[in-house]
Amino acid sequence: MSQKLFELVGIDATRPFSPYCWRTRLALAHKGLAAETIPWRFTEKATISPYGSEKVPVLLDGDKAIADSWAIANYLEDAYPDRPSLFGGDGGRAMGRMMNWWGDIVVIGGIFPMIAADIPTHLADVDAAYFRRTRETRLGKPLEEVAGGRDSAVVAFRRSLEPMRQTLKTQAFLGGDAPNYADYSVFGGFQWARVVSPFKLLEASDLIGVWREKLLDAFDGMARKSPGYPV
Amino acid sequence: MSQKLFELVGIDATRPFSPYCWRTRLALAHKGLAAETIPWRFTEKATISPYGSEKVPVLLDGDKAIADSWAIANYLEDAYPDRPSLFGGDGGRAMGRMMNWWGDIVVIGGIFPMIAADIPTHLADVDAAYFRRTRETRLGKPLEEVAGGRDSAVVAFRRSLEPMRQTLKTQAFLGGDAPNYADYSVFGGFQWARVVSPFKLLEASDLIGVWREKLLDAFDGMARKSPGYPV
Repeated sequence: MSQKLFELVGIDATRPFSPYCWRTRLALAHKGLAAETIPWRFTEKATISPYGSEKVPVLLDGDKAIADSWAIANYLEDAYPDRPSLFGGDGGRAMGRMMNWWGDIVVIGGIFPMIAADIPTHLADVDAAYFRRTRETRLGKPLEEVAGGRDSAVVAFRRSLEPMRQTLKTQAFLGGDAPNYADYSVFGGFQWARVVSPFKLLEASDLIGVWREKLLDAFDGMARKSPGYPV
Repeated sequence: MSQKLFELVGIDATRPFSPYCWRTRLALAHKGLAAETIPWRFTEKATISPYGSEKVPVLLDGDKAIADSWAIANYLEDAYPDRPSLFGGDGGRAMGRMMNWWGDIVVIGGIFPMIAADIPTHLADVDAAYFRRTRETRLGKPLEEVAGGRDSAVVAFRRSLEPMRQTLKTQAFLGGDAPNYADYSVFGGFQWARVVSPFKLLEASDLIGVWREKLLDAFDGMARKSPGYPV
């Protein structure tokens, strides 16, 4: 029985960009699963509301529907226990919860103001209007004004990644010798940025950039094959 | 064969305060081990240099000497595999490396400027002079000047803990239902602050404060029994 995954796209249906959907796409690949993609756009709430969610990713697996990237990762770990583990044991699953929050808050939350203004250019008018309205309400100012501060914001962002950078001095991935869900939690944010924005998040010498290259190459270059800007 | 642990103290040899030593003390308790303490002070470099270290913790276990809290945690996990696991599997050990760096940089590094000026009052003159000289060189200003900004620094510090705070909304410990080394990596910093400074790091309503209480109670109240300020 094959899986289907609702993934956020804009004008180009082959260019999924949600950081949360990318986490799930990599988690599926890690488990050796290749879900069929169902392109989904911001204003298509009605399509996924039957599955009890207003947001993607939503995974359909047989008669089950699972929403939320963290819930999906846990579902996959439990439903496919004989496939490679996403967490490497109970300790990794527990710590993975915080690694995922770190990905949400420090990585995705840190990147958002720097790339938000680049996102509407990838969206159809109706979705661009929705995105601008909801995000400007959240930020309290126009997207372009937020983006105007990105040259200084990126300095603080790079500094905020220091715990990860230090970790990568002694191991190739957050998951150890090979990537696991901790890596996907963080990489989702970097892939999102790569797909929608030309802005350079990392300095050329950054170890995190080396790690990002490895994740771009993972699973036969799955993330790299997806259209995006040079990083 | 019993263990011995060099632990940083000041005037009061019963008041160990190093955040790194507290990590090790809790890791030993987790493994059901109770090392004999060897009080050690900043300027007693000669005492531990035979063990290849200039800093504590240094653990002596039979004919082995292990320095550095992370190295000690890994040593204990490997040397005592039949005792409760500090990492909960390979995934937890790998992610634990970053959790530990997060503890070093965000927690200990965040707390340091807020409590540094309180530390010399706990030290003998020779150690206080050493501490002040080395730390003021590192900070580029007098300890009291650094501490002067702590009322605003603590706001940023509390915000920086958000990934941990969100995690504790759905699980009691970073390690899941019970604490593991991820918790000790972080708690070491809070215990250090409690032992040397009356400064309030957390708001009364903070979930991280609830977690801290549980860690203070762990292992028969080991951390709470150690003299400190009210938190």
